Amino acid sequence: MRTRAAVAIEAGKPLEIMDVNLEGPKAGEVLVEIKATGICHTDEFTLSGADPEGLFPAILGHEGAGVVLEVGPGVTSLKPGDHVIPLYTPECRQCEYCLSGKTNLCQAIRATQGKGLMPDGTTRFSMLDGTPILHYMGCSTFSNHTVLPEIALAKVRPDAPFDKICYIGCGVTTGIGAVINTAKVEIGSRAVVFGLGGIGLNVIQGLRLAGADQIVGVDLNPAKVEMAKRFGMTDFVNPKDVSGDMVAHLVELTRGGADYTFDATGNVQVMRTALEAAHKGWGESIIIGVAPAGAEISTRPFQLVTGRVWKGTAFGGAKGRTDVPKIVDWYMDGKIEIDPMITHTLTLEEINKGFDLMHAGESIRSVVVY
Amino acid sequence: MRTRAAVAIEAGKPLEIMDVNLEGPKAGEVLVEIKATGICHTDEFTLSGADPEGLFPAILGHEGAGVVLEVGPGVTSLKPGDHVIPLYTPECRQCEYCLSGKTNLCQAIRATQGKGLMPDGTTRFSMLDGTPILHYMGCSTFSNHTVLPEIALAKVRPDAPFDKICYIGCGVTTGIGAVINTAKVEIGSRAVVFGLGGIGLNVIQGLRLAGADQIVGVDLNPAKVEMAKRFGMTDFVNPKDVSGDMVAHLVELTRGGADYTFDATGNVQVMRTALEAAHKGWGESIIIGVAPAGAEISTRPFQLVTGRVWKGTAFGGAKGRTDVPKIVDWYMDGKIEIDPMITHTLTLEEINKGFDLMHAGESIRSVVVY
Repeated sequence: MRTRAAVAIEAGKPLEIMDVNLEGPKAGEVLVEIKATGICHTDEFTLSGADPEGLFPAILGHEGAGVVLEVGPGVTSLKPGDHVIPLYTPECRQCEYCLSGKTNLCQAIRATQGKGLMPDGTTRFSMLDGTPILHYMGCSTFSNHTVLPEIALAKVRPDAPFDKICYIGCGVTTGIGAVINTAKVEIGSRAVVFGLGGIGLNVIQGLRLAGADQIVGVDLNPAKVEMAKRFGMTDFVNPKDVSGDMVAHLVELTRGGADYTFDATGNVQVMRTALEAAHKGWGESIIIGVAPAGAEISTRPFQLVTGRVWKGTAFGGAKGRTDVPKIVDWYMDGKIEIDPMITHTLTLEEINKGFDLMHAGESIRSVVVY
Repeated sequence: MRTRAAVAIEAGKPLEIMDVNLEGPKAGEVLVEIKATGICHTDEFTLSGADPEGLFPAILGHEGAGVVLEVGPGVTSLKPGDHVIPLYTPECRQCEYCLSGKTNLCQAIRATQGKGLMPDGTTRFSMLDGTPILHYMGCSTFSNHTVLPEIALAKVRPDAPFDKICYIGCGVTTGIGAVINTAKVEIGSRAVVFGLGGIGLNVIQGLRLAGADQIVGVDLNPAKVEMAKRFGMTDFVNPKDVSGDMVAHLVELTRGGADYTFDATGNVQVMRTALEAAHKGWGESIIIGVAPAGAEISTRPFQLVTGRVWKGTAFGGAKGRTDVPKIVDWYMDGKIEIDPMITHTLTLEEINKGFDLMHAGESIRSVVVY
């Protein structure tokens, strides 16, 4: 079939909107009509050329929602008409990782996904002249139709709006999951969140959901304060306004250090501050942000010997097929908010404007609605 | 009273064995006759001058066992004749740290202990000319008699031999506790231990006790192999014999990375290797070793984002008054071994020989018996 897609022809160039060929689903695969997709910093990271593992030409996008149109042989858990959210971290429920009970990093299709291919080692997308186009993070939601493995689709309730729940495909789950799955924050905790962008806001509402007593937000941009307060931030710190040592300031503000700190900036210096602002004896610091290629974190080992724990999280530690439908329910039940974070809605033809808004810092999340 | 002690007059000089004055116990304090004391690398670290927080003159030693001679006003949990092990990490059971359920780092007497003083801000030791002598780590077991706060003494069974259980005051508990309290190793785990000295051997027997399936020891000295095997090591790796990347070698040996890795070297490069040899998705790396002043650990944050956890441990995460008596029981019941690790027994007059043996790498543990 043919479908309409925004294609990343090469690094550093705007996406090109064009018709492309899409082969139907093979065994274990599913054809999905994407109804809406968010534009995430990770798409920008790859499009910019900064991602050393970026491959071109490719159809980017990994934060979508849509409807199953057709299933390939052997698919048993989905049928046409089902509403789904694509998962860049699949959940096969069979591999050593899925069965460990300790991680969400399913490895079932890791090797091919990293190469921009379906599990059989081929791509379903091509240009009209036959040139293959690669998949991206196993999702490629910047195409009106896409093909995914069955294990990379979360089935969700049919009454949830696509243009909101697409954000659960990455940002919402990453932020809330970091709190609930990775940190396992307890009621009454004190926490510090570095970076009040789309991920940071979701960390904040995750902390509110988990019953944290103090939720400190840290950002260089005071324009972020209003929205962060809306999601549960109790204290704001602008590093520009702190004359002395930032760690000491945060330790005092949290009465001895935070029980949990979260980096949602990707800046390795901030990651160090986040670790050291964690409480002696038990404070845990969770790295969410993606650092530039080659950047390293560092600290004195004494920080760990005296009880701080350094962790990271990918997709919020969520097992997608199991956890994403629950988060959709939380949204529909009003336990979490998404609508105020969707600041811009665009058509596919306008998708490059979404990247411009991101660069200008004017959007929290732009969503393309097909 | 007067007692006999080995005094650290200044950094870099041998200890001087002399008679010293010792004041009796004040409120909440206990006079203990030390019967035996181990000589630990931490004593050496301070005596050498490498410890930036080292203070002199002081009576070093923190790995002892002895008998209560006298208790000060208000002491209720101990009486003359009780057998005790001094605790450089006390357990007040009242402070925020003790009550957190998350750490063993009791802060009740932290400030004064760090200054070489009893909780009232004074010292009980002095030279015969009246010059004050500082306490060390709140213990000062290189004196035949010493005074400690009640909260810094673990009461242990009276039939346990002092010259063996003194080692539980630091090395044994640190190594075994890192496995049991900090890492919480599960049956069937794969583990790597870096450094096969006194701490590393105790990590190894802790892993055996916890039911680990694979216990890999890493050391530059092949002479350590025999003893390590005796305590449960299943595989030995000498980095000198590995031509390629050490991390890749260990990941292959442990079939994907170790569930738990332990640094007992204090070398920050080894700490990095230990982290990166931990299993993707869930591997935890525990720092036990004390690094040189100013040294920093580093890695790419990707290592944490993909599920590895970086932790540290002090005194094996053990709550001394609660856990040390249990470890003494384990020794008496034959669950753990100590005797083979006590390679040298000395008199107080010979204590400097113990440091020489340590420098020469000829001892695992030298114990001074009074």
